Amino acid sequence: MDEIRLARIALTWLVEPGNRAVFRLVGQFGPVDALRRLCAGDVTDQRLRTTVAARLAAGDPWQVAGTAAEVTERLGARLVTPEDNEWPAQVGHLERLTLAHAERRVDQETAPPLCLWVRGGWDLGEALERSVAVVGSRAATAYGQHVATGIGYGLADRGWTVVSGGAFGVDAAAHRGALNAGGRTVAVLACGVDRPYPVGNTALFDRIAEAGLLISEWLPGADPLRPRFLIRNRVIAAATAGTVLVEAAARSGATQTLRRALALNRPSMVVPGPVTSAMSVGAHELLREHPSARLVTGVPHILEEVGRIGADLAPPARGPARPEDDLDDESVLVLESAPRRGALGPEVLAARAGLDLRTALRKLSMLEQLGLLVRRDDGYALPEPGRRPAPGVPG
Amino acid sequence: MDEIRLARIALTWLVEPGNRAVFRLVGQFGPVDALRRLCAGDVTDQRLRTTVAARLAAGDPWQVAGTAAEVTERLGARLVTPEDNEWPAQVGHLERLTLAHAERRVDQETAPPLCLWVRGGWDLGEALERSVAVVGSRAATAYGQHVATGIGYGLADRGWTVVSGGAFGVDAAAHRGALNAGGRTVAVLACGVDRPYPVGNTALFDRIAEAGLLISEWLPGADPLRPRFLIRNRVIAAATAGTVLVEAAARSGATQTLRRALALNRPSMVVPGPVTSAMSVGAHELLREHPSARLVTGVPHILEEVGRIGADLAPPARGPARPEDDLDDESVLVLESAPRRGALGPEVLAARAGLDLRTALRKLSMLEQLGLLVRRDDGYALPEPGRRPAPGVPG
Repeated sequence: MDEIRLARIALTWLVEPGNRAVFRLVGQFGPVDALRRLCAGDVTDQRLRTTVAARLAAGDPWQVAGTAAEVTERLGARLVTPEDNEWPAQVGHLERLTLAHAERRVDQETAPPLCLWVRGGWDLGEALERSVAVVGSRAATAYGQHVATGIGYGLADRGWTVVSGGAFGVDAAAHRGALNAGGRTVAVLACGVDRPYPVGNTALFDRIAEAGLLISEWLPGADPLRPRFLIRNRVIAAATAGTVLVEAAARSGATQTLRRALALNRPSMVVPGPVTSAMSVGAHELLREHPSARLVTGVPHILEEVGRIGADLAPPARGPARPEDDLDDESVLVLESAPRRGALGPEVLAARAGLDLRTALRKLSMLEQLGLLVRRDDGYALPEPGRRPAPGVPG
Repeated sequence: MDEIRLARIALTWLVEPGNRAVFRLVGQFGPVDALRRLCAGDVTDQRLRTTVAARLAAGDPWQVAGTAAEVTERLGARLVTPEDNEWPAQVGHLERLTLAHAERRVDQETAPPLCLWVRGGWDLGEALERSVAVVGSRAATAYGQHVATGIGYGLADRGWTVVSGGAFGVDAAAHRGALNAGGRTVAVLACGVDRPYPVGNTALFDRIAEAGLLISEWLPGADPLRPRFLIRNRVIAAATAGTVLVEAAARSGATQTLRRALALNRPSMVVPGPVTSAMSVGAHELLREHPSARLVTGVPHILEEVGRIGADLAPPARGPARPEDDLDDESVLVLESAPRRGALGPEVLAARAGLDLRTALRKLSMLEQLGLLVRRDDGYALPEPGRRPAPGVPG
């Protein structure tokens, strides 16, 4: 493996991914020289210097990188870097990401990844080019899992890659939906690609590695430490054309992914749920707080947000078509004036409808022709139930 | 009864409420002269002239009004007009209401009512001054009824009058919730106050008449004709400080009430529901189409919209308080680096957290004091489940 790639691995090991100072160093001096400067303590950032010093006490970065490269190859995985054709360029937008109220370090350290480990046969850039993230609670309800599975299926069925985090609940449901559609799905992990977490999803990860991709910005063997999930979430938001949140409790990690998508100006979509469900509190709060978070109820709405203009547009919600739909205003008034039971003469109907008799007679005749009213000896009446014309079949 | 009041009754009988031409005539000439001009055919609007002529063929307006006045008194009801102190002035805002895409007559004829019939002991203006409309589907699900009852209860409990249409489903649930709280509720009917519709809600209407108000702009004896429900809905929207939609199918009458509230620039609130429910399609469509339609999940959000500034404000959604919440960033990193099982020494924890050893030791000592980490012979470990400090009780 060449020096640049090894340096990127070493840098990823030396400082947790997302560090802005390291990303800037790499941009300024290239990975190899950036690594050299960091190891020499040749950086202004005091905190970064002490972090690196603590890490260096645990091992030699070049040696760690060399071992990681070997392990990667042995696993049948590969390293993808910005130097490669398959690098998903859109994660570079993280360079400009700034989160509102970013007080915690994980909310400040949101620089692009330096490299990505990949398991699976697809070209990474191609797989992510037309992709949607579906994220949500690990403790999803049956409703959330049902909706996530449906969205995963529907997106994959329309040729979109479904990206998620491989967790229990919504993540797993979205991945499964995509797999069931025979589509492509990508799990972005917060640990090494050799030990996808949680182990309870091992069978699912095996299917994903076969039909899609497992990716991670951490070295093989890396633990799924808790802060890493949040660090990872920025990649889910940045790698995709849009993010859909299915179920989230207040203050959950999934809402953080959506906030990152919002900060990136990517389509940020939220599926509502029952207000009686604690698992939808985070979803509803996002919809209330962020005018640009878009309420979606299913795949057609999602495609409307991420799809190409003019294609994949959602039809407006409508009830079943009825013959009355095409009536003019005055006919509607006459029809609405007919009694539920019994019949009424044209004069009374005209008065009820607020129309003159001549107009009313003309409309009555048309309504009779359409089968919407019946003329009887004692006047006009509504047809018996079951004898009304079928929806969509006027006349 | 004086001439002006009788003229208002006669006008209401002569032309369906909401007619803009009639409302303008009354504004210009007063009710008595407006009635005289209409009866004499002394109006420019051809359609109005023929409507009036058809009505006049069915009876004499002054006589009809006199009879209605007698019936009103016999019922123990009363007529309230703009000349009365208890007239709810806010319905006058309907004068400026214009609906987008108003093609049907019911969407154009949205002028203020000329008078209102009232059954019940409360002062009408006072009852409606601090009121919220809660509307929704007649075919509400158990979820919708549960939510509407809760909102009705919560609003009434906070001293707000709950206004609705007395229909099955959401309307009835909202009324019942308010009654159960021992609060005030108002049913705005689309027929005479002597025969509230639907008859299946008769017991409910009796309770409302006793503890709240039944009101209508139609003469006693008037039928609940279908167009009247839409005409009535504008009064529900205009009489209240805001409207909440709980459940609505696509293209339902309840969505029309909310559209009227939106057009009046009143707080227009929508409760979301499961996207798998046909009964929430209309609600979600409104939230998608109207940026000023506000998603609400319960009474605190509703009060935030309609309440006086500074009072009745909703707290942000939060999970239960945890001792970790008040930790600084570096302590969080150390805490998150502790292994799920077993213990780790300070050097390893420092490296995992990306901190220098001295900082890590300081944070470890504090975390130990807070009971969030335990110091053992083999290093620092998470406390056993059940031995962690209780939420909200740091230290």
